[in-house]
This record gives sequence, structure tokens and C-alpha cells, in this order.
Amino acid sequence: MSSRELLVLGTASQVPTRHRNHNGYFLRWDEHGFLFDPGEGTQRQMVHFGLNAAAITRILVTHFHGDHCLGLAGIVQRISLDRVPHTVDVHYPASGQVYFERLRGASIFFDQSHLAPHGIEDSGEIARNDAFTITARRLDHGVDCFGYRIQEPDRWNVSTARLEELGLRGPLVGQLKREGRIEHGGRVIRLEEVATLRRGQSVAFVMDTRACPAAIELARDVDLFVCEATFLHSEIQEAQEYGHMTARQAAEIAREAGALKLVLTHFSQRYESSEPFLAEARAIHGDVVAAEDGLVVPLRTRRELRAEAAELEAP
Amino acid sequence: MSSRELLVLGTASQVPTRHRNHNGYFLRWDEHGFLFDPGEGTQRQMVHFGLNAAAITRILVTHFHGDHCLGLAGIVQRISLDRVPHTVDVHYPASGQVYFERLRGASIFFDQSHLAPHGIEDSGEIARNDAFTITARRLDHGVDCFGYRIQEPDRWNVSTARLEELGLRGPLVGQLKREGRIEHGGRVIRLEEVATLRRGQSVAFVMDTRACPAAIELARDVDLFVCEATFLHSEIQEAQEYGHMTARQAAEIAREAGALKLVLTHFSQRYESSEPFLAEARAIHGDVVAAEDGLVVPLRTRRELRAEAAELEAP
Repeated sequence: MSSRELLVLGTASQVPTRHRNHNGYFLRWDEHGFLFDPGEGTQRQMVHFGLNAAAITRILVTHFHGDHCLGLAGIVQRISLDRVPHTVDVHYPASGQVYFERLRGASIFFDQSHLAPHGIEDSGEIARNDAFTITARRLDHGVDCFGYRIQEPDRWNVSTARLEELGLRGPLVGQLKREGRIEHGGRVIRLEEVATLRRGQSVAFVMDTRACPAAIELARDVDLFVCEATFLHSEIQEAQEYGHMTARQAAEIAREAGALKLVLTHFSQRYESSEPFLAEARAIHGDVVAAEDGLVVPLRTRRELRAEAAELEAP
Repeated sequence: MSSRELLVLGTASQVPTRHRNHNGYFLRWDEHGFLFDPGEGTQRQMVHFGLNAAAITRILVTHFHGDHCLGLAGIVQRISLDRVPHTVDVHYPASGQVYFERLRGASIFFDQSHLAPHGIEDSGEIARNDAFTITARRLDHGVDCFGYRIQEPDRWNVSTARLEELGLRGPLVGQLKREGRIEHGGRVIRLEEVATLRRGQSVAFVMDTRACPAAIELARDVDLFVCEATFLHSEIQEAQEYGHMTARQAAEIAREAGALKLVLTHFSQRYESSEPFLAEARAIHGDVVAAEDGLVVPLRTRRELRAEAAELEAP
């Protein structure tokens, strides 16, 4: 039951409202589960939206303002209480080590959690395995704040029919995939002749920053770009002063980066509706969603991606 | 606009459910506001139920298990953000000083709060002023845990009509109130002849404990007794093992103490309904309520109490 989707747990900046909890975003990615910026009450939002603590494999905190991290205390204790058997990696700005430790041991509990904490010193790759690479980039927010990008590697989908036609098998196929070309039957065969490149999926997560080049780099060509839009552009001065973005700026970044879909979130409590945010952003980018608590944004699954690649390959 | 009431902010033990947030109880008491055991998400429950951070004058934490204290971090930051001008006293078990400090500084914020922390070493009086006395008593829960009692002093309501009849005025009245009797017009006048004693109101708050004598002492003759009832009596063994009470035990304590009204709360998530809790407790005590998030339990106001005293005094 592999699936990929973003589950929005909370969307309020600074203070919660009747309809918006503090931040919280869960990216389900096959057997992996990335929890971003668990604000206070994330544990209960998970109950509301049917998310089990055991689904979390990795936690990523952009920065240590309360609306992005106070829920960490409850999440860790829930992971412990539910005896989640696997190790959960936790990434956060290294300068906030003291806050991580306070939240990790905020009250008395019998700790059965397995956490692997990773403080981030500077922009760069912070995790890599067969399924994805995670990159962090320093943003521009007054306190240390890192945005994140999850990148699936590109993969070649090899056509068995084409291999048979060319009489290719066994170690030769492996060599072709590794080297991109081989000599066979008296001629050079290039990988593109027998395989289709499937572009890896990618998601970027950018919170609490002024518009900056790092945000664009993170969002470059991503399938899904989750971006703060605390203010409308009428409040650009205020956004600039407090280290935030407007909906227009988020959309400009998405457009410049070539991001496919933009999810706006982290709205200031002063606005009663997200409609003006959508209007502002849609004037600039074609595929924009305003996050609400409980929103699910599906991503194509690994199986769907394979099927698409197979279709492309068909004559 | 003086009023007295209990506002229930959360009622779940251990883990929140769809219908119950972690604990949180606000006692509005004229111009005072006592916040008991702010669990995670209390800040948002306050938004749901229309309670302003500025209404909090005192915070009382029974113990440092997460469901009773993780909300403290957000409450302190909200008090700071809202620039609440007055000092908020915070009472908690002294052995949990490290947890208080972690929660008080759980993340980065520009601290504009005024807090007066008071660690409780042992049972006894922890605050006293003209309006009330607060007593803490050590309960029986495995970790340091204190129950609380708010007690309004008894007051004499003096009848001006009787004073006139007896020709009493000025300093003589003060002397009579202070000393209980005076000589005047050739005879001894006792205070009871010119005044009615108005019994002070009282509220007891008992969380996370086995049934114990301290709980009875706290609840002695109170108007309102807020008491944990984590389990039904069918789970008495489990209650005993984990340091909790059953609904029947809570009701037995209320009856033995002579508490007027009993509010049951802190229910285990395993129970879908509070009806069996009510049934169990009502077999023992005549005035029982099962707490739900958002429940308001009115107490008589100072004005109503005065009016009642005046009626008693009338012939």
C-alpha cells in the first residue's frame, strides 16, 4: 500500500485560531513519513486526521519559534508511549540544540523512543539513501532557519522488449545502465535506446523567510512546493520587517523555480479568508492551493510513475 | 462584571482524543483566574472557548506528566505575546523545577511575560490574601503530585438595621467584628446578634492520585470538587497499579468530605462514553457532573452570596 501525499496538520502562524492549528505537515512517501514543523497540538491533529505516530520516520524542524516546534515534546512522548520500534531521525538547526533538548525532555515520561538527532550547521545534503536525498538550505528569518528539499533520484526504466530485440541480457544490461553506452553486435548502443529516464519526484518545504535565492534553489523544478505566505502583498513592508513572505512572493518564487504545484500556508491570524491569497498567487502561478487543516495533496505514487514511464516508452 | 465559574478546557488523560483535549481547567473567581494543569493544546482550547490569556492570574500544576503540563510552554509564550501586564504566579512541585524551566524556555521568543514561579516542597498553605487562601497537599501518584484547594475566608455580613436598633456605630462596630463581642449600653453584645456568618466558597482540584486521605482533606466541605476518575471501578486493580482513581472512589471521597458538587474528569481514552462514570458516581453522591471540553460549571457569585446572606438575615 505505497502512497505519496502531503497531509496538512496545521496552518496558523504565531497563534492558533478556531480553524487553524499551529503548523504541522506530514509527507507520506511510500514507507517513509516526514513530519515537518510540529507546532503545539500536532499530536491531537494527528488523531483528528487519522495519522499514527508509527508512520513518522523522520522529523524536520525549520527553526525554533514556538509555532514550528512546541509540538515536538508531545510527538516524542507519543512515539515513546506507542513504542514505535524504528529510529526516528530529527533534523533541526544546530544552533537550537538547547531547545531540541528542552522539548525532548519537557516533562516526566518513561522514554522508549529511538531518536537520532541531527543538528544542521550549514546548507547542504543532510541525508541520502536509495529512496531520496534531503537537502537543507539556510533561509532568511532573523533566527537560524533551514528550508528542506526531498529529492527522489532519477531512474532509468529499461524496456525488456528492446533488450530482447537487441539481444542484450545479464551483465551487459548492468554495464549499460552504469556507463550509459556499450559496444554490442558490432555497434554502440546508448542507454536512451533501450530505456526511459523517469525523473525523480521532489518536494520543497520553505517556512519563515524573506524571499531569498535559497528558497528558489530548494523549489527548483519540484513537483510540490509548500511555502509560507504569512501576509498579502499589501503588507509587504511588514513581511520584510518580520522576515516573512507574501502570497505574491511565494508565487513568484514558485514560477521562477519552475515548481509544478504551490501550496500556500502559515497564514497570519488577521486574515479571515485564504481567498485573497489564492487570487494573488494565481495571478502569477497556474497551480496554487491554499492549505487548510486536514487538506490532503496527493502526489503520484511510485506505481503510477512507473506506469507513466511505461506509457511513454510504448510506441 | 464579577463572576465565578469553572471552564473546562480539556479532559483527556494520557493521550488526546477527537473529542477530548489533554487536561486544562480554568477557574474564574471574580478578578482572579486560576489555570490548572495546562496540557498540550490548552492555548488553542482557550481560543475555542473564548478565554483570553490576560484572564490568567495564577497557574497551578499538579505534576509534571505531559498531559498536565506540556501546554505551559505555549501559555507562557501567549502571555508574553499578548503583553499581559500583571505578574502570573506559577505553582508546581519543587522537584520538577527542571521541567518548569524547560517548558518556560522551550523555544525562541522575545520574553515579555512576568512570571513568579513557586516550587512546592511540601503540603501546606502556598498563598494567602484578602480574597482567598490556597493550600496544596501531596497526593499519591508515583511522581510528586500536589492537589489544590482555593478557600475564600468566612465573612460576617453586618445588619445596619440591627446596628441602629442597638445604637452601635463607628469604631465600636470594628471592635465588635474584630473581637466578636463588646460591652455597650450596659450589656454584652455578641457579633452573632448583629451579623450573619457567610461561609467562604471553596474549590478543590485533585488530579492523578490513588484514593488517599489528602484528597479528602482538600475536598472537605468544598462547593466544587474537580476530581480525576481515570477508570471505572471494574478497572480498580489497574487504577491502583498506575496511581489513579475510579469514578466510584472519586464519589466516595466527595461523600466522605461533604463536597457539594463533584466534577469527574481525566478519563482514559479506552472509554467511549462518560455515562458509566456518571452512573457509578451518582450511586454514591447526589450532585455529579462528567466534564466535557468546553463545559462551564457556574459557582455562585460574590453578589449572589451576599444576597443569600441578606435573605437569611431577614426575619
